[in-house]
Amino acid sequence: MQFHLDGYRPGDPSVQEAHPAAQDPDAGLPDTADVLIVGCGPAGLVLAAQLAAFPGIRTVVVDRKDGPLQVGQADGVACRTVEMFEAFGLAERLKEEAYQVNEVSFWRPDPADRSAIVRTGRIQDVEDGISEMPHLIVNQARMLDHLREHMARSAARVVPHYGLTASAVEIAGGADAGEHPVAVTLEHAGGTSVVRAKYVVGCDGARSAVRKAIGRRLEGDALNQTWGVLDVLVETDFPDIRLKSVVQSEAGALLIIPREGGYLVRLYIELEAERYRDLLRERAVTPEVLAAAANRILSPYRVEVKDVGWWTVYEVGQRLCAKFDDVPPEETADRLPRVFIAGDACHTHSAKAGQGMNVSMADAFNLGWKLAGVLTGSAAPELLHTYSAERQTVAQDLIDFDRDFASRMAAGGGATTAASKAEAERGRFADYFRDQGRYTAGLSVRYEPSMITGTGEHQHLAKGFSTGMRFHSAPVVRLADARPVQLGHAARADGAWRLYLFADRVGDRSADGSFRRLCDHLASAASPLARFTPAGAEPDAVLDVRAILQQPHHTLDPTTLPPVLRPRKGRFALVDHEKVFCPDPRQADIFDLRGIDRDRGCMVLVRPDQYVAHVLPLDAAAQLSDFLDGVLRTAG
Amino acid sequence: MQFHLDGYRPGDPSVQEAHPAAQDPDAGLPDTADVLIVGCGPAGLVLAAQLAAFPGIRTVVVDRKDGPLQVGQADGVACRTVEMFEAFGLAERLKEEAYQVNEVSFWRPDPADRSAIVRTGRIQDVEDGISEMPHLIVNQARMLDHLREHMARSAARVVPHYGLTASAVEIAGGADAGEHPVAVTLEHAGGTSVVRAKYVVGCDGARSAVRKAIGRRLEGDALNQTWGVLDVLVETDFPDIRLKSVVQSEAGALLIIPREGGYLVRLYIELEAERYRDLLRERAVTPEVLAAAANRILSPYRVEVKDVGWWTVYEVGQRLCAKFDDVPPEETADRLPRVFIAGDACHTHSAKAGQGMNVSMADAFNLGWKLAGVLTGSAAPELLHTYSAERQTVAQDLIDFDRDFASRMAAGGGATTAASKAEAERGRFADYFRDQGRYTAGLSVRYEPSMITGTGEHQHLAKGFSTGMRFHSAPVVRLADARPVQLGHAARADGAWRLYLFADRVGDRSADGSFRRLCDHLASAASPLARFTPAGAEPDAVLDVRAILQQPHHTLDPTTLPPVLRPRKGRFALVDHEKVFCPDPRQADIFDLRGIDRDRGCMVLVRPDQYVAHVLPLDAAAQLSDFLDGVLRTAG
Repeated sequence: MQFHLDGYRPGDPSVQEAHPAAQDPDAGLPDTADVLIVGCGPAGLVLAAQLAAFPGIRTVVVDRKDGPLQVGQADGVACRTVEMFEAFGLAERLKEEAYQVNEVSFWRPDPADRSAIVRTGRIQDVEDGISEMPHLIVNQARMLDHLREHMARSAARVVPHYGLTASAVEIAGGADAGEHPVAVTLEHAGGTSVVRAKYVVGCDGARSAVRKAIGRRLEGDALNQTWGVLDVLVETDFPDIRLKSVVQSEAGALLIIPREGGYLVRLYIELEAERYRDLLRERAVTPEVLAAAANRILSPYRVEVKDVGWWTVYEVGQRLCAKFDDVPPEETADRLPRVFIAGDACHTHSAKAGQGMNVSMADAFNLGWKLAGVLTGSAAPELLHTYSAERQTVAQDLIDFDRDFASRMAAGGGATTAASKAEAERGRFADYFRDQGRYTAGLSVRYEPSMITGTGEHQHLAKGFSTGMRFHSAPVVRLADARPVQLGHAARADGAWRLYLFADRVGDRSADGSFRRLCDHLASAASPLARFTPAGAEPDAVLDVRAILQQPHHTLDPTTLPPVLRPRKGRFALVDHEKVFCPDPRQADIFDLRGIDRDRGCMVLVRPDQYVAHVLPLDAAAQLSDFLDGVLRTAG
Repeated sequence: MQFHLDGYRPGDPSVQEAHPAAQDPDAGLPDTADVLIVGCGPAGLVLAAQLAAFPGIRTVVVDRKDGPLQVGQADGVACRTVEMFEAFGLAERLKEEAYQVNEVSFWRPDPADRSAIVRTGRIQDVEDGISEMPHLIVNQARMLDHLREHMARSAARVVPHYGLTASAVEIAGGADAGEHPVAVTLEHAGGTSVVRAKYVVGCDGARSAVRKAIGRRLEGDALNQTWGVLDVLVETDFPDIRLKSVVQSEAGALLIIPREGGYLVRLYIELEAERYRDLLRERAVTPEVLAAAANRILSPYRVEVKDVGWWTVYEVGQRLCAKFDDVPPEETADRLPRVFIAGDACHTHSAKAGQGMNVSMADAFNLGWKLAGVLTGSAAPELLHTYSAERQTVAQDLIDFDRDFASRMAAGGGATTAASKAEAERGRFADYFRDQGRYTAGLSVRYEPSMITGTGEHQHLAKGFSTGMRFHSAPVVRLADARPVQLGHAARADGAWRLYLFADRVGDRSADGSFRRLCDHLASAASPLARFTPAGAEPDAVLDVRAILQQPHHTLDPTTLPPVLRPRKGRFALVDHEKVFCPDPRQADIFDLRGIDRDRGCMVLVRPDQYVAHVLPLDAAAQLSDFLDGVLRTAG
């Protein structure tokens, strides 16, 4: 966290100075917006938090509820989401209060007495080394609290407006379009208001009004599975009550998710179609019914529910929109999107794999920097097409995964296919679960080549930074202050691209080596850095150049580094000392960990959403320029 | 962090539910207090934050300033202080925003050209393994912000009262004493008020009015050394500007302390008596004078000051009170203290070793639980004598250390003794600095045997938990949820004693082994646990029993543990699952790390301020009882 750049400022450094255009929390709903976000769920608030980094963008967030969510809904926070929260400076707070999923236990019917369950295995939940972040469990309400607090601390002071239901969305075209072509009608207690926006994002859930307005549909089937969810305080003799536990008994399936705070636990309880058909039809399922079902599944163990914090019943369904914006596929070449949908508004699935909230937030994190880039003029408007292209594919993968996962989960009891039942009988869910670990951690998304993702022809220079996948952090030491840090935490949710220069063996020591030459080029007027950084902006505002040298940090003199690695910032043009890193002598060497070619080094270009855009040789300055020319624009 | 024990509660779990007796931030100064704290500096606010854990105690904090400190003063936060902040749940926030001191560089005159300095060494600042916490640098104002926020989040909602200057302190004795025997007169803009208190603590700095009122004096000499301090933004070619650097040149000594946020730096600049005599006498030293002095010392490097955040000039003096309370030594047997002094009010020294704020906070942390214990009736009133006895010795050690350290620091330039100058010439300050690392980290305090510190006759059972020294945390895995944690972080700033049971080799597996037998005893009506826990209090409120087993956590069934290790809490009598730990398979085994006798195991009793009170064999239940009988009382 950097601060005091323009002079010492008292108080909490995470609270930014309010921008002249900052929102007034007491002001009413404005008439116009650059971006109108409909819905204050995980997708809506990640988007709002991202846009809050740009006080020049007027972001308006509305929700039909009367105030913030208090309890219930999602609770699984995948490693990837914690990585993203780190970019907002929120990861530590989250880790402090969340339950951390370290191990998972698996229970099956005892072969000797199939009415009783026995533990069949216990595995590590997150494979070593796949992320520096843990898998957490915390109430969605708290996730949203953190995001709202971040918005309130931002220079833009973005504040949600509650009690507003979107009832119509109209996109003006042609001559009528004007600066704010999308009109959203919002119903509220006092009547009806209209907000005109440049862009509208529907984060308004599975019954999304925005989705309906742009004529998109959630398509897909329901799996014939119904589950109950209980957030409860319990008395129990089940030994793994504080471990995530997958129980597949003769009486059905049960998933135990211990919750934050040491006492609360969430139970996902399969409600077998045959047994519960009448109760479900009559909507007569109660927490008592769910508790009784849990006890049947857990036999010979018992849970006695002492207090119910929240509960619900839902049917598993996997449904998906064909496209996540308002532009029909055939018009993509001629028209730019004005309306987007994210999260449950465009994909729904089961809760069992713990993906819902995470994928919704990732949708928004994919979209936020793109909207900001286009609105600030630093990116080509065509960038907006990549949102649907990238995230619809991810959602399709998720639906496929979830269908498989949910079937296998339920397999012990009400298995729907003979194959999954047979597999379950062989007790292989634990193996399956382990194999899918990278996926459920949110770490297997790979974006296809596009204007913002390279083709990977130089992947051999950095095998561990897969093009199109999220930049996998690794430990390093910051040269200037010898602080052990995670390289990936250089990424802030600030809309900047990051260019990591992994030095070759000679590194900084040869003036005509490829590393120095690239640094000199980047400092020149011809470089993308010079061309795309607007006048008056900090030198790292659009493209943040960082270097990782192979030499031990003790052997280097920071003052002799190329000027591009000692950029000058703020009103006093002070040197930013935090751009250069070396291997951490107490940890595995980052060059080894990520398979960097030590002889040749490389550039790794990372998108503002932390995905690897391109791996290039150090002497490929022209290729870097070409690539960035495809997406960046010289801002006014 | 535990929460949701009595049911799900929305919102920030670190904000406790307000107690019926919680303070109203808008209410004026009350007439009476259980504890009146004079001064909102580091000592005053640590004490207030500690007492805020006891909403039944009415804590009143006053300060003569008009509001919170904004800038300047101390900035060094020793490892031990971060450990203490962890007990308040504040360590992570602190670490996030602070500068972390990882390495220290040393500079001396170049033998070839003594007018120029050269680097003579660079060492690790904190020796590996001495604390799980780093050495931090952060503005005192922020430390105080964190403590105030903690107070505001506490059930007691303790709020400081500003603009109140203590002008008189009178202690009524005998028949006049009443319930609130100490009357403090407070001057304010509107006139004069009197607060009557059970106890008064003067945390009111070097010119303490409370100290004067109880007739104590700061005694000692000034070293003939004057230093300037500059918190500045600079342009410089000095390569180690982001490392803590000790520069001892022909022109004097300079200490560079990089500050939080990446840009700010503090310079401590020696002002040689001869050169600066006139300027000092005329009080004509300015930031420009200090900057010029820094440049002379740093030659051939230069610093150009761009902005001054804060600056001061001070003379080094080491002064100390003979006793830290109002009871004359000869009356200790007959009289209990009513007035205490802490921090700068009873000891002053130089800032160079970075001890000031830390020792002041440690004073308060030593006193807080004692006052709370006596006020709640859970501890013998004689406990209050141990505050002065323990902390006056620590302060005396500090004064001795500081005299030595400050002389050696200045030795390169204005060395005051031939011996220190000679030593400095040999360039040995780096070695000295390294040798003193444990001391400056705040980790070498050892309290003498007393009613709250044992004599160490069983020290061989746990060589790494030295009696009288702070409990040295180590990594473990929590049995119930397989979470890797620091054992020392079980300690919260809640006034409870902690009893760590390190199991013998057999551990939990033998019903007649010493571990099980001790657990059974602790669960019996005769145990100190039963005798000293007040009716209605949680079972771990006074004595928090934890166990560390030698077996891998996978091999143990938590439900078969002795009941004392699965205490029941809250309105639903839920099991607290977080009392039992095992070695962390990814880290060094705690039994090896801390030299625990694996055959015999042991008990380690830890005071509420995290100091080891006693090491006892597992079969020494009677000795444990005897020891606790010496300090604890059955609360009403």
